[in-house]
Amino acid sequence: MFDSGVGGLTVLHECLVSLPEEDFLYLGDTARFPYGDRSPDELRAFARELAEILLERGAKLLVIACNSATAAALPALREELHGRIPVIGVVTPEARLAARATRNGRVGLIATPATVDSGAYGRALADAAPGAELHAVASAELAPLIQAGGDVDHRVLDCVEGACRPLRAAGVDTVILGCTHYPLIRPVLQRELGRGITIVSSGEAIAEDVHGTLERLGLANPATRRGAYGFLASGDVEDFRRLGTRFLQLPITSVEHFEVGVRAAA
Amino acid sequence: MFDSGVGGLTVLHECLVSLPEEDFLYLGDTARFPYGDRSPDELRAFARELAEILLERGAKLLVIACNSATAAALPALREELHGRIPVIGVVTPEARLAARATRNGRVGLIATPATVDSGAYGRALADAAPGAELHAVASAELAPLIQAGGDVDHRVLDCVEGACRPLRAAGVDTVILGCTHYPLIRPVLQRELGRGITIVSSGEAIAEDVHGTLERLGLANPATRRGAYGFLASGDVEDFRRLGTRFLQLPITSVEHFEVGVRAAA
Repeated sequence: MFDSGVGGLTVLHECLVSLPEEDFLYLGDTARFPYGDRSPDELRAFARELAEILLERGAKLLVIACNSATAAALPALREELHGRIPVIGVVTPEARLAARATRNGRVGLIATPATVDSGAYGRALADAAPGAELHAVASAELAPLIQAGGDVDHRVLDCVEGACRPLRAAGVDTVILGCTHYPLIRPVLQRELGRGITIVSSGEAIAEDVHGTLERLGLANPATRRGAYGFLASGDVEDFRRLGTRFLQLPITSVEHFEVGVRAAA
Repeated sequence: MFDSGVGGLTVLHECLVSLPEEDFLYLGDTARFPYGDRSPDELRAFARELAEILLERGAKLLVIACNSATAAALPALREELHGRIPVIGVVTPEARLAARATRNGRVGLIATPATVDSGAYGRALADAAPGAELHAVASAELAPLIQAGGDVDHRVLDCVEGACRPLRAAGVDTVILGCTHYPLIRPVLQRELGRGITIVSSGEAIAEDVHGTLERLGLANPATRRGAYGFLASGDVEDFRRLGTRFLQLPITSVEHFEVGVRAAA
């Protein structure tokens, strides 16, 4: 499983709830964070590189736990890795959940510019709920503010308020958190959106997809087993350990460093 | 609204989601934390004292956002304050939610010794779901570990595992978090309980009760208003500010100190 930072830990958490018998290796590309304003070509190159690292470590299934990377790279990566490893991404699962949740057909989206620009959610929602309207708000600042790991302060509140205001004005009844970082400040978002709006995020739906795929391909571990989990970061490992422990509420004892850009430069 | 510490902030959060137009004053009796191993008489005296402080500050409705204090003091306080202020407590709302959630009629409870010993949940569940079985686990350690505010570590994990093991063994499909501190480590509890067990906590149900009571008594603010919130602590105010900001993900700029035991000693 990989993400640009600690956001994908919200996906890992749901996988640990559903699949305690599986081993997980989480890779945070913190040296190149944020992904939200990268070009599609860059994101595809990063995704390819990170997938190879995880394949070398013996991964049997790959989760892209980052919306920007999924939006840019999922179809290409799936094709390139076909027959080697199944690849699961975000975006489609949330669109499916939003289609199920909305009653008035007006769905909001908060995501990075890369994700919004890709149009991936528009396509996924049109498939899942033909006729539903998507109201998208791009925020370049929110994921970096969360990744910085400080207390929620007025910059975060202003940013959340700025993102939610147009969605409330559009009368949406469902909002997709289109970045895996956002569930880490779900209380702030829920207060700003109020009680009547359903928040949809990817974690639980991804965990279902992972479970289903492992079963279908005969790759699932026996349910009696207790899985292990490991962490890799391309940036500062102590920062990752500290933030990850706090955000995941899981004691992370060690984080291994990995170099990025080596293959690309070679 | 009062609690022994920062746990009741999980209730305040849900009230802020539902009732952004109301003003809230939160009082944390951190100097006398924890309440979980206090006697019923002590808890009734504390609740009386804190209620008077909030009444003096102009409260129009009182929420006991602490399970130990509710279990010991709610009926007495309601009677004593009858005609002066409506009083809402935890316990009954969670029992109602658990009755709705359980499919197999086996409900787990994790709570402080004071709450478990009071038998309040057994009575509330028998009212809400006659015939349902309650499996209660008392933990004196968990609330203080959370209130200490450190990272989730092996002491927390061991404590959570010890509380959840007998509940899983009893085959419960629903677990009541019978202390307002516990939702602050909900991810840890959900991982330990697994996907098939529904976790029930009090926040949202309390918010519903507060809303309904204000409407019924004609005490509700106009919906267009933006409410204010304030904080009082009987212990260290900076500790409270720091912990509260982190746990509530709400910037708390100032916390006022208040003295406890003054009236009791006078």
